[in-house]
Amino acid sequence: MIRKFTFGNPFPTEAVVVSCPAEPGELPYFSREGGSISCKMASGAPVYGLGEQVRGINKRGWTYTSNCTDEPNHLESCHSLYGAHNFLLVGGEKPFGIFIDYPGTLTFDIGYTRQDTLTITPEDWNLDLYLIEAEDGTYLSIVRQFRKIIGRSYIAPKWAFGYGQSRWGYKTQEDIRQVAEGHRKNGIPLDAIYMDIDYMERYKDFTVSKERFPDLPGLAADMKQEGIHLVPIIDAGVKVEDGYSVYEEGMEKGYFCKEADGTVFTGAVWPGKAHFPDMLNPAARRWFGMKYKVLLDMGIDGFWNDMNEPAIFYSEKRLNQVLDQAAEFKGKNLDLEKTNQLLGLFSSLANNPEDYRSFYHEPGNTGERIRHDKVHNLYGYNMTRAAGEAFEELEPDKRILMFSRSSYVGMHRYGGIWQGDNLSWWSHLLMNVKMMPSLNMCGFLYTGADLGGFGADTTEDLLLRWLQFGIFTPLMRNHSAMGTREQEAYRFSNMESLKRIIQLRYCLLPYLYSEYMKAALEDTMMFRPLSFDYQGDPEALQTEDQVLLGDGLMLAPVYQQNALGRYVYLPEDMLLITASGPDDFRFRELKAGHHYVEAAPEEVIFFLRKGHILPLAQTAENVEQLDETRLTAAAYLSEESSYLLYDDDGISKDYENPDNYETITVSPDGTVRCSGNKGRILKAKVFVPAED
Amino acid sequence: MIRKFTFGNPFPTEAVVVSCPAEPGELPYFSREGGSISCKMASGAPVYGLGEQVRGINKRGWTYTSNCTDEPNHLESCHSLYGAHNFLLVGGEKPFGIFIDYPGTLTFDIGYTRQDTLTITPEDWNLDLYLIEAEDGTYLSIVRQFRKIIGRSYIAPKWAFGYGQSRWGYKTQEDIRQVAEGHRKNGIPLDAIYMDIDYMERYKDFTVSKERFPDLPGLAADMKQEGIHLVPIIDAGVKVEDGYSVYEEGMEKGYFCKEADGTVFTGAVWPGKAHFPDMLNPAARRWFGMKYKVLLDMGIDGFWNDMNEPAIFYSEKRLNQVLDQAAEFKGKNLDLEKTNQLLGLFSSLANNPEDYRSFYHEPGNTGERIRHDKVHNLYGYNMTRAAGEAFEELEPDKRILMFSRSSYVGMHRYGGIWQGDNLSWWSHLLMNVKMMPSLNMCGFLYTGADLGGFGADTTEDLLLRWLQFGIFTPLMRNHSAMGTREQEAYRFSNMESLKRIIQLRYCLLPYLYSEYMKAALEDTMMFRPLSFDYQGDPEALQTEDQVLLGDGLMLAPVYQQNALGRYVYLPEDMLLITASGPDDFRFRELKAGHHYVEAAPEEVIFFLRKGHILPLAQTAENVEQLDETRLTAAAYLSEESSYLLYDDDGISKDYENPDNYETITVSPDGTVRCSGNKGRILKAKVFVPAED
Repeated sequence: MIRKFTFGNPFPTEAVVVSCPAEPGELPYFSREGGSISCKMASGAPVYGLGEQVRGINKRGWTYTSNCTDEPNHLESCHSLYGAHNFLLVGGEKPFGIFIDYPGTLTFDIGYTRQDTLTITPEDWNLDLYLIEAEDGTYLSIVRQFRKIIGRSYIAPKWAFGYGQSRWGYKTQEDIRQVAEGHRKNGIPLDAIYMDIDYMERYKDFTVSKERFPDLPGLAADMKQEGIHLVPIIDAGVKVEDGYSVYEEGMEKGYFCKEADGTVFTGAVWPGKAHFPDMLNPAARRWFGMKYKVLLDMGIDGFWNDMNEPAIFYSEKRLNQVLDQAAEFKGKNLDLEKTNQLLGLFSSLANNPEDYRSFYHEPGNTGERIRHDKVHNLYGYNMTRAAGEAFEELEPDKRILMFSRSSYVGMHRYGGIWQGDNLSWWSHLLMNVKMMPSLNMCGFLYTGADLGGFGADTTEDLLLRWLQFGIFTPLMRNHSAMGTREQEAYRFSNMESLKRIIQLRYCLLPYLYSEYMKAALEDTMMFRPLSFDYQGDPEALQTEDQVLLGDGLMLAPVYQQNALGRYVYLPEDMLLITASGPDDFRFRELKAGHHYVEAAPEEVIFFLRKGHILPLAQTAENVEQLDETRLTAAAYLSEESSYLLYDDDGISKDYENPDNYETITVSPDGTVRCSGNKGRILKAKVFVPAED
Repeated sequence: MIRKFTFGNPFPTEAVVVSCPAEPGELPYFSREGGSISCKMASGAPVYGLGEQVRGINKRGWTYTSNCTDEPNHLESCHSLYGAHNFLLVGGEKPFGIFIDYPGTLTFDIGYTRQDTLTITPEDWNLDLYLIEAEDGTYLSIVRQFRKIIGRSYIAPKWAFGYGQSRWGYKTQEDIRQVAEGHRKNGIPLDAIYMDIDYMERYKDFTVSKERFPDLPGLAADMKQEGIHLVPIIDAGVKVEDGYSVYEEGMEKGYFCKEADGTVFTGAVWPGKAHFPDMLNPAARRWFGMKYKVLLDMGIDGFWNDMNEPAIFYSEKRLNQVLDQAAEFKGKNLDLEKTNQLLGLFSSLANNPEDYRSFYHEPGNTGERIRHDKVHNLYGYNMTRAAGEAFEELEPDKRILMFSRSSYVGMHRYGGIWQGDNLSWWSHLLMNVKMMPSLNMCGFLYTGADLGGFGADTTEDLLLRWLQFGIFTPLMRNHSAMGTREQEAYRFSNMESLKRIIQLRYCLLPYLYSEYMKAALEDTMMFRPLSFDYQGDPEALQTEDQVLLGDGLMLAPVYQQNALGRYVYLPEDMLLITASGPDDFRFRELKAGHHYVEAAPEEVIFFLRKGHILPLAQTAENVEQLDETRLTAAAYLSEESSYLLYDDDGISKDYENPDNYETITVSPDGTVRCSGNKGRILKAKVFVPAED
């Protein structure tokens, strides 16, 4: 059951798509004091949610702030990342969900100040608050109700489930061809090459460098011949440059955010001075969205939206102030305090809260303005919505790949997200794991982290172990920053192992795509904490480094350097699958309980649950080449069981077609029956659980 | 066996105290190419050492640089911390140790570039290289030989094994009294209060603020009445200020480091402009060391040396250049590259390598100079040596507490180290664990981390779990930075649990002190990786989150938020000890193998090895109050076993007195016999291992 409470005069975020009348009475569960609401948390009860955030799947023990921030380090002690996903699931005897639909800065103190107290503090009380009670006592029923009111999650084209290679630093079309060649000649599958800011002319959105990419349509067509899609980046800020049509049109039409006095706000990003389209204004949004057509017309069918918190390197005004202030330090003897003042001037240049308070949006056609900081968390959402709405208009029958850095609940209908600019740290591999279920709760299904790590230098073993988890995430992209060690799989002495793991991804694709589509179409979670399926199991509740994936799998990645195995908790008997490549699947039954499971550097381990079936394909060079008509299956069952396989053409939007579903039934004796007439599964390898 | 190889003309670091002739021949094990030496590492073989460094106990898979650096974040991807400990133990069929006695920048690529290759690269080849072969094939024999040639480790007074409370921000003597009061009235034991930079007059070394600490001798005396020692900080840089005697004397005598043209080098630290005593010059070193007398005379008997990498906030010259360069950015449109240039000016102000190349030492009385960067890693070592040599002269019969931030092998003879300015991160609790055996290898026995974390805000559970490990480290200090959450145990809602854990420390003290003293006197390791005692056990080799402590204990701290237990690997049957306070010890035998062991938030778990005895005291308010004449013991044995207990007066240096040793023999039936006539152990609780 969902109960809505409205306070003050909320900004219409359009996060919720179902109309739901507000209740007049008191807010249950919480007590309100000052500007905060608080409730006690039962000892040992988990608190889930918050989507893209640091720390555990269980969020207890820290303070989190929804305030979309370009935060490149994702440290344990940071409070905000790129997204604002204000949904919490509070466990305990009577679990409930809470969604605070509020686009400003919002703080969740989840047992930080006192271990037993949850306190939520918005900057002001203009907001809608939704309380969601479990229909059947389960955590999942809370999430599904929430997901239902926020609308169906974005669905990516099937090719976007292939392996993608990216780097900030592919400067020319020749670089792109070399990356394709590097993969092809080494037999490493590849479905996409991402183009970071380097492809543009002086970092101008919707331009292509004539010098370095003289023929993008030709390049895109050639790549598509090899089954490779090019995916360019689009940034939020529009360069200030006379003669640049996007800038000139935006100025002419008044589509950029303005300061209080009507001056267009100038912040700097990659190209230097830039203006920020008013993504909250419907006309400006449509205008910006339709610009993507320039690239669609060149044969591009996927994009990533970046810098849309929006990140601001500096504002013109602040930079001048800072330089003036710095000059005053000249010739002085600076002690600790003064040194910190000087350094603080520069370290607070970027993403300064005062700058966010200095410009405005015009969300309606009424001329009424709202200050940016009050709706800050909606910016990336509406940039991606701009694109999504345009794609709907330009390509109504075709899925376009779209994912964003910044987001808010509601954006999940228009695109996925990547998990931001992480680092080549083992701890960020584990963060990748933990973020998957949290994001799924909040509607973000198409997601993944920069495999191998974006910033800092990766190591051969980190990339290998990270890919062993990345083969399970919908977005599977290797991405790295300029100046770091080159990170393409073919650069390393363990290339053969890396390749074989990437090949495995394609074997798993029928299952992964099926589970992703069902999660999207049924408003459910592809990745779940163990406690969702084993609610009440105290050890499942504490397991923070394993996740359930779809119908029948449990993942337990190795995320520690030099480890040759790891501890795994099995809430029930499961079938351990050890694989080093597409031709090497080994199976072993493990009983419920705690285990130490070996995993050599080249081996990925995962688990098939009892009574479940895992369809598997032969590997392929890319998604297009994947033969989904001839699958095998691994099954772990003692009585006849079924798997509902979803498949479609991967590009159209005919999701509801009943032909997309096929029920595959496997018996302990290995007999396979398929509903419909596709008969995809040719044979099944069945493991019958041992008697206890 | 130790073999020495000399290259070029090494600087006499005095790290090694035993004379050892250099061999003329080729360097075995390694091949030399260009400026590097390399060798292959066997697959799966560990590499240990490097003392204070990031990452694992097993250092494989990263590049480490010996370059003493004020690095406050200790991130996975950093390469240098505060110390330079150039000792490696290379595992494999024929393990060996290598110590590179080289005071400049030195890089160890331990399987980063290629997983199977170790490459060592000094900036130049003026160095002594020691190769140490195992006498009996054991890792420990390599370490002991190394420790023998570098001399006996510093021995702290026994009171320094009590609990200490510190914070950057105790501004007045009233603040200090309140900290003492906060502990006393809540019954929390306390042996030391640390005084950070706040106690000084304008951050001038060897001064005490007249305004805020009008009577330090009185304060110190009052505190000592309560069994509390005051431990002030001393910084490396000497404030430039007319009328300040240390500055004026240093100038007059020419004891500060100079630039090439003879100008005294000016860098800035806490007080602003400062000069750096030439700690490598024997006369300057003696002069600086004797300054500690000012504080000794006020009743102080312990110090910590800080900022002695040396950290430099900025050099006078560089600051002026930077401000001039910054001014040129005024009014410009800064794109990515220019923005980075501007920010880079300020972010590279501190600890700039060019500044380290701009001043000189005069290590002899010959007038010969050496540029600082060539001997950079010796600075903190020689600052601490200055103090240590002075203490030897001023207080020949008394142990003075001394530990340092920066260090080099050799400094371990004059003081301990704390593990630097860490953060309130769970990952830094684990780093604390991993660093203990690595530091012990390199001679640093008196060590510990800032419990609860120095920077960032701690949480109630993090402090509790961290103390549960901290009760085992020789230095047990809670320390936090200005601006962070107040971190004294009495600030938190779980104070009772925190107190009970701190009380436990005192129960363990007879064992901890005994093991520390034996490790120091016998050149061995108090903390060891599991693979040292269970060499050849492949699972012990991979265990990175457990350590052996002394004769009979194995530690397995909980270091994950919200965890109510953890996995533990037992190389052999052990006795699990679960304790929540001084009156609550529970014992349970666990068989060899992998276990999930429960540990409620208030419980510490640790293990007693088979055939071993753990002496235990009643808790006390401080070390002085500890009654070491009435001990009990826990024992886990199936036949009569002995424990060699070391004890002394804790303050004099009469280490070799045979009366300091007592052999305690326990039989399975609970009979206790003590050698000598002290008869400390009154009774033993014996657990007889179950038959297999």
